Amino acid sequence: MSGIRFTLAATDGAARTGAIDTPRGKIRTPAFMPVGTQATVKAMYPGEVRALGTDIVLANTYHLMLRPGAERVARLGGLHRFMNWPHPILTDSGGFQVMSLAQLRKIDPDGVTFRSHIDGSEHRLTPERAIDIQRLLDSDIVMQLDECIALPAEPAAVERAMRLSLDWAARCRAAFGDGPGKALFGIVQGGDLPALRRQSAEGLAAIGFDGYAVGGLAVGEPQATMLSVLDETVPALPVDRPRYLMGVGTPEDILESVARGIDMFDCVLPTRAGRHGLAYTRFGKINLKNARHAEHPRPLDEASDWSAARDYSRAYLHHLVKSGEALGAMLLTANNLAYYQSLMAGARAAIKAARFAAFKAEVSAGWTTEDR
Amino acid sequence: MSGIRFTLAATDGAARTGAIDTPRGKIRTPAFMPVGTQATVKAMYPGEVRALGTDIVLANTYHLMLRPGAERVARLGGLHRFMNWPHPILTDSGGFQVMSLAQLRKIDPDGVTFRSHIDGSEHRLTPERAIDIQRLLDSDIVMQLDECIALPAEPAAVERAMRLSLDWAARCRAAFGDGPGKALFGIVQGGDLPALRRQSAEGLAAIGFDGYAVGGLAVGEPQATMLSVLDETVPALPVDRPRYLMGVGTPEDILESVARGIDMFDCVLPTRAGRHGLAYTRFGKINLKNARHAEHPRPLDEASDWSAARDYSRAYLHHLVKSGEALGAMLLTANNLAYYQSLMAGARAAIKAARFAAFKAEVSAGWTTEDR
Repeated sequence: MSGIRFTLAATDGAARTGAIDTPRGKIRTPAFMPVGTQATVKAMYPGEVRALGTDIVLANTYHLMLRPGAERVARLGGLHRFMNWPHPILTDSGGFQVMSLAQLRKIDPDGVTFRSHIDGSEHRLTPERAIDIQRLLDSDIVMQLDECIALPAEPAAVERAMRLSLDWAARCRAAFGDGPGKALFGIVQGGDLPALRRQSAEGLAAIGFDGYAVGGLAVGEPQATMLSVLDETVPALPVDRPRYLMGVGTPEDILESVARGIDMFDCVLPTRAGRHGLAYTRFGKINLKNARHAEHPRPLDEASDWSAARDYSRAYLHHLVKSGEALGAMLLTANNLAYYQSLMAGARAAIKAARFAAFKAEVSAGWTTEDR
Repeated sequence: MSGIRFTLAATDGAARTGAIDTPRGKIRTPAFMPVGTQATVKAMYPGEVRALGTDIVLANTYHLMLRPGAERVARLGGLHRFMNWPHPILTDSGGFQVMSLAQLRKIDPDGVTFRSHIDGSEHRLTPERAIDIQRLLDSDIVMQLDECIALPAEPAAVERAMRLSLDWAARCRAAFGDGPGKALFGIVQGGDLPALRRQSAEGLAAIGFDGYAVGGLAVGEPQATMLSVLDETVPALPVDRPRYLMGVGTPEDILESVARGIDMFDCVLPTRAGRHGLAYTRFGKINLKNARHAEHPRPLDEASDWSAARDYSRAYLHHLVKSGEALGAMLLTANNLAYYQSLMAGARAAIKAARFAAFKAEVSAGWTTEDR
């Protein structure tokens, strides 16, 4: 029935490791999905994204429906061929960006109407159209359309958005149909209200999805809020399906969420930070804009497997960042994604070895040894 | 006596092919040197620049003396280590950029005083300081300081600048000393006046340099003017030393200049054009901004050895360029440098086979088959 197969290999407390098998390849979990907003992981060659340990990337339906357009991508053979990435792709439904980027958005029970942030043209997304667009893109993991509201919000507003999202979940499920070789994920909403989160999770499970995402987090709330929502929500999700925490997060957020049973993550942080002069390393964050690095002869990490971390001095990276050179963004993005993927590989190995808590403590201790 | 060895392997008419041997590696001639203005060939990894057939890159003294500073580069182990490029580097003297970029420049017989375009700070370049900076950078091929004046100009002004450049050439030669393992090149000036060009060339030859550059061209004059200056100048240059045409040029400029006996080129064109959506191919120039490419499923060149030319549709490149994505600049820069280096490799092979004229005609015919 499901277009993909999820196999758990080991658990360690609530943390789990396994793999999602898709016709386009295996996704090792816990997995980090680099964000390829406009059909490109910014400042990276796709071969490089793959080489540093990426099994799946995320692309944004909102951006691609506006430019170049889903029908155009379909005529060009689908998103994989378009962006020269033959491996799995997850697409979001567009709902989140409609709320954060589009102009003059108007939501109604049937869908949402909005104007493009690029040229002001009017567009409409319904649950059925969101599925159709993702089918045109030929996405491997398709997300339901949902309404994600900003926190803090009134309980009544949170409940209304959760119930609308549940209604849209059922419509997406119906529109998706069989989807051979593809997966459809439902999205848990309910803000920071445990009862609503549980209702949402149970409602989605009753409909039945190939995987379950936790949405509406990492929207500005404290980490403690996010983690307590996970504590309430994850136990209500089916154990035999992958769980995806949308838009998260820092390395620390990710380890804390893995500890709570999350299997998949996406976040712009490693790529965006790389374009802004910030390096993630096992020693912590390093701000290459800082003048203290101007004559620092050491690389980010001599022991790294990756050229970006090993073959360029911090002084050179500082120079590139200060000079606005593209190579600075390229090297720091590569370093950051390599670090994130090595963190995920470490997490997977630690869970298999039943020492995830120790791994998390060791990694956290390392972060305190460098400047922030 | 010379820090490098230049060997001619074959000539075909005035065209010649050979190699410059330096302690850091061999430079096959005719050679194209990608421009690494601020110690980076923009939007390219150094390993990539190398892989597509580059033997030597150019870096700009003006930019590097201002940021990060020559003494700082020296303390960090020199420019090669700084930019992770262990192969030969040619640095210009800074004179050209002082004229085109700096503020409040004031030239006198001893040197030039100017303010940085970055922060307005005052700096001075003399022939001796230009040599000193290039020594601090640890450049393999060092250029004399010269005065390059814009064309058209009054004959008296052209002659004054030529004589000043000749005087500075002698001072640079004296300041350079032995320079073991390094080369010092003189620069022919004299605008579009044949008699002055010949006097400049003969004056430089009398001083004695490891190579001879033709400067003050590609500054806006018609191609015919440039080529007629070469016709007058090249025969006055020593046959046993490399000849470098500075700042040139289009693929057509390069082939015409190789036909006139030039051995080395540098130009921002392939890298700058790549950042502006323009691809150089064996079919001619392709402007990826043009809407006609929006659904074009073919790559730039299916038969290319290079991923950038072969693995991405023109529709995708159009999308990247229209979306302002870094990957567009990365792929088009890589494509353009790959095309330039394949052109140089073709020229070298054709000269060896004594069929350079036929090669030039075939290549030119290919350029007319695609849109411009």
